[in-house]
Amino acid sequence: MTTGKINVSVENIFPLIKKFLYSDHEIFLRELISNGTDATLKLKHLTSIGEAKVEYGNPIIEVKIDKEGKKLHIIDQGLGMTADEVEKYINQVAFSGAEEFLEKYKDSAKDSGIIGHFGLGFYSAFMVAEKVEIITKSFKDEPAAHWTCDGSPEFTLEPADKTDRGTEIILHIAEDSLEFLEEFKIRELLNRYNKFMPIPIKFGTKTETLPLPEGAAEDAKPETIEVDNIINNPNPAWTKQPTDLTEEDYKKFYHELYPMQFEEPLFNIHLNVDYPFNLTGILYFPKLGADLQIQKDKIQLYQNQVFVTDNVEGIVPEFLTMLKGVIDSPDIPLNVSRSGLQADAAVKKISNYITRKVADKLKALFNDNRADFEQKWNDIKIVLEYGMLSEDKFYEKAGAFVLYPTVDDKYFTLDELKENLKEKQTDKNNKLVLLYANNKEAQHSYIEIAKEKGYEVLLLDSPIISHLIQKLEGDNSEISFVRVDSDHIDNLIKKEDTAISKLSEEEQTSLKTVVETIVPKQNYTVQLEALDSQAAPFIITQPEFMRRMKEMSQTGGGMFGMGNMPEMYNLVVNTNSDLATTILNTEDKTTQESLVKQALDLAKLSQNLLKGEALTAFVKRSFELIK
Amino acid sequence: MTTGKINVSVENIFPLIKKFLYSDHEIFLRELISNGTDATLKLKHLTSIGEAKVEYGNPIIEVKIDKEGKKLHIIDQGLGMTADEVEKYINQVAFSGAEEFLEKYKDSAKDSGIIGHFGLGFYSAFMVAEKVEIITKSFKDEPAAHWTCDGSPEFTLEPADKTDRGTEIILHIAEDSLEFLEEFKIRELLNRYNKFMPIPIKFGTKTETLPLPEGAAEDAKPETIEVDNIINNPNPAWTKQPTDLTEEDYKKFYHELYPMQFEEPLFNIHLNVDYPFNLTGILYFPKLGADLQIQKDKIQLYQNQVFVTDNVEGIVPEFLTMLKGVIDSPDIPLNVSRSGLQADAAVKKISNYITRKVADKLKALFNDNRADFEQKWNDIKIVLEYGMLSEDKFYEKAGAFVLYPTVDDKYFTLDELKENLKEKQTDKNNKLVLLYANNKEAQHSYIEIAKEKGYEVLLLDSPIISHLIQKLEGDNSEISFVRVDSDHIDNLIKKEDTAISKLSEEEQTSLKTVVETIVPKQNYTVQLEALDSQAAPFIITQPEFMRRMKEMSQTGGGMFGMGNMPEMYNLVVNTNSDLATTILNTEDKTTQESLVKQALDLAKLSQNLLKGEALTAFVKRSFELIK
Repeated sequence: MTTGKINVSVENIFPLIKKFLYSDHEIFLRELISNGTDATLKLKHLTSIGEAKVEYGNPIIEVKIDKEGKKLHIIDQGLGMTADEVEKYINQVAFSGAEEFLEKYKDSAKDSGIIGHFGLGFYSAFMVAEKVEIITKSFKDEPAAHWTCDGSPEFTLEPADKTDRGTEIILHIAEDSLEFLEEFKIRELLNRYNKFMPIPIKFGTKTETLPLPEGAAEDAKPETIEVDNIINNPNPAWTKQPTDLTEEDYKKFYHELYPMQFEEPLFNIHLNVDYPFNLTGILYFPKLGADLQIQKDKIQLYQNQVFVTDNVEGIVPEFLTMLKGVIDSPDIPLNVSRSGLQADAAVKKISNYITRKVADKLKALFNDNRADFEQKWNDIKIVLEYGMLSEDKFYEKAGAFVLYPTVDDKYFTLDELKENLKEKQTDKNNKLVLLYANNKEAQHSYIEIAKEKGYEVLLLDSPIISHLIQKLEGDNSEISFVRVDSDHIDNLIKKEDTAISKLSEEEQTSLKTVVETIVPKQNYTVQLEALDSQAAPFIITQPEFMRRMKEMSQTGGGMFGMGNMPEMYNLVVNTNSDLATTILNTEDKTTQESLVKQALDLAKLSQNLLKGEALTAFVKRSFELIK
Repeated sequence: MTTGKINVSVENIFPLIKKFLYSDHEIFLRELISNGTDATLKLKHLTSIGEAKVEYGNPIIEVKIDKEGKKLHIIDQGLGMTADEVEKYINQVAFSGAEEFLEKYKDSAKDSGIIGHFGLGFYSAFMVAEKVEIITKSFKDEPAAHWTCDGSPEFTLEPADKTDRGTEIILHIAEDSLEFLEEFKIRELLNRYNKFMPIPIKFGTKTETLPLPEGAAEDAKPETIEVDNIINNPNPAWTKQPTDLTEEDYKKFYHELYPMQFEEPLFNIHLNVDYPFNLTGILYFPKLGADLQIQKDKIQLYQNQVFVTDNVEGIVPEFLTMLKGVIDSPDIPLNVSRSGLQADAAVKKISNYITRKVADKLKALFNDNRADFEQKWNDIKIVLEYGMLSEDKFYEKAGAFVLYPTVDDKYFTLDELKENLKEKQTDKNNKLVLLYANNKEAQHSYIEIAKEKGYEVLLLDSPIISHLIQKLEGDNSEISFVRVDSDHIDNLIKKEDTAISKLSEEEQTSLKTVVETIVPKQNYTVQLEALDSQAAPFIITQPEFMRRMKEMSQTGGGMFGMGNMPEMYNLVVNTNSDLATTILNTEDKTTQESLVKQALDLAKLSQNLLKGEALTAFVKRSFELIK
């Protein structure tokens, strides 16, 4: 038996890094600026604990394009490296400098915000450069070093004459990557990945106009000067304490995050926790439009102010992916598959924390200013309703702030509905019947009839509402939801009193026969009702259960196959209406038939069922009537 | 100046591989089975050229779970390795065995279907295993070898007593990966990644019932035997020649690819090219429903029969991502960002080839059986129309097969429209006016009027149709599309003859004043027309240009801000209608007003504009009329 060490052949590690490690070449700039930031924060820490006896000052990182020389420079003013350190940190691939540093200064370094992964990220430079130089001068009293490597494993290391502290990386951009010498491209990358990194990043200069001195002549020209163009905000709102921020600050930061977004967010939720995991961030409730898909995945994920991704699937509960904002957490594993993320205990805790914070915030908003909350309801309801359906923990808390508006813009919680409506809308079986419409226009005539009875009609118009009311009924056995056009109002909320019909039993049978002969049987079930004589003579209704199951199966769920069931309607004939008597007493069969048909057409109009050829014929007939 | 070699510290390469190289742990099984397939195909090649003097036989690959021992076995009957080869191929990470092999047998190996990347993939085993063993016996006359490694760089290598040719990999599954000892999990992975790999893969056994021998007794029980359960189809349809496949074969393969899909595909396109790039595959046109988003990304990408991904964005032109099927090409770079893919010349060629093949197939289908093509039109039009808008090369070819159906289910190509309709539908300015509707039901009365004139009305109801007709008009200056309700028919196709009005100039002015006083000015522009006396007295129209621009901006594009313009309508009053005279001659102002209002309501009904409260009032009024 032999034993040995697996040998990694170095000729093959560069293509490996180039090909496999980073599928996205662009991130080289993020990695190099992260390293510069890291080196600067390390120096800050060492000066703060007295281990580095130098002036920390106001260090920046500079990115410079040399288009003619086909070079890109990244220059920091951090702790720099001695020749020995270059040997150790650069020439030993996959040696994580930050890890060793953290190990050494464990406790004091905890809060200094050091970005991890030092070392390996550097080699991403070879994805875009055919040659890389490092010119670096340590804060220690040692000569500067100059390292050069053309992507083969051979490097050269020699002394340099750099005198100011810090590291300059020079990328000799390869022929296939010349786009990275374009100013707009670099600006785009900086804006994407480094917009909120903690050290100021300079990219070029800009002109600033000085204010005129007091008492300057009328025609004096203001002086202009060139200043550093700093492309990032090193202190973004989410790194601050909520108590230090005003509503204005939150809105300003929202527009910083989404410069192309002109609408104001509705409200924000500041996340801030450091045990049992570390997470900061600000979530915003935006105004949501109808197309939810487009609005998903706007939350940005950062780690220590470095942009990572805008796909937070698995980290944020799904119903909250329609929010906007940032989350910054070093505790989210990045190189894990989606299913891995869902199984990760830390991620689960983070997701639960976010759900709880959102629910708490909603409750506070509701309690602090209900009128304002009601006004925002239509813009947030879809998120909340979806949350109630998908997250049990959220559902439990939602009773305290979820609203059910009426067609007249009154807003009730579920408890208030039970309390306020029970007197009028409890039926003879002791069920509280909650009437609702999903379209004020389309169901107008039915809503009017219900309102005349003194009932409240809710306006529930979200696409997933049938699922939600199904769930609410399951958990609240004393209530029942019915759409206002699912039967005649006296049948929807049945009271003890029995209606008296003008027509005798015999007349009713005769009327029913007449109507059934004329009306197509396969579409309508004729149902005689003794209603108020002033009520409409013919009304078309569609039973709640059937319609709801169909809706549920169209939006995913419900009973299998229900979506394909044919539409079935009831034709309610008001036996107390004058028209019923007229139909019954009309001897002439043709006149009788045209009366029933016209009445059916009018009932269909109220239910939006008169269309196409039938509508054209109806309009033509009606024009004839008035000419 | 010193020079040196960058040193890759091996202690760090394992965590690197574990953490970074594969974000998805699952793929270890695909990699190991790929290696086994590779070793088998290599042996096949060596025996075929006489270099290996052994019987190739019918080798399979076996996957076995040992749940109690927490082990997963992958066993192949390929060429195996000698101890020296283990040293070379396994102990030298990132040394690609396949590369060296291909180099050596360049020409003869080209078509033997060898899967690349041997070597590196093996280490993915350590993502799920805490210890890995290799027991391997070469086809050469050398003793078997037994390699063991626990994930640290130390390994042991000793002789083994394995006598049958091939390699067995034993994974000692780590505690955090025990899911990979579950049968359903392994079955799922095999089904996902290895369903069409070229060597049979055995996973367990199954019971098969033998047929009864002829003349067996009535009560004889059929014998059952245990047979290997082969989970893959080593010869999927796309690897065969189109001439060897029937329509039934293509359909069968479709259901093999999508076992949960019950509907038949409409037709298929067999891709088969080996120069200047290598690509095979079968694309299917499925029946498309309304929600296009859900139906995207069903095409599966393979490389040499190994599943890679079902995201073909950038490889297949966007309009074809709604198709289904497989593409198999070794020439698609996998570790490139999306923008990189789009810039890649080979990928561009592949994308163009696919577009051309699809266009050619559509043309052939159209020419071979036009009736059948017309029948399928509604299910494929959205893809084709989108293709015309997004790919110029496709647009150029589309004239030969893209259809424009009428409301009466006649189908015309654009050239046929020009030829057949020019006589009747050319207006006095020599424009060929193509009338269209987007909804047969909603625009029924307008369609009827046009048909009475002997005009054809197209039914163009795709959501992107306004963009397409805008493009067609731009490229065909002699035609103009107008929706059938965008003006009165005599104005849509203006002929030389001037209409004669029953009313005098004075009467017309008077009628216009009356109507304008009663009808709300902000919504309707009153327009008097001397139409046929039998035509409707009031008609509401909406000008084409405005409506089309609004539609275009709603589906992305068109003029900026048009989407928010208010709806504007014209109210066409037919001065030759009886009602016009009646209104003019009615002395009583109240009666006159109710006549105009009723006529307006009826015109609104025809244009689906009478809703909510106005509709409820109209229905009530109309019930009064007949009671």
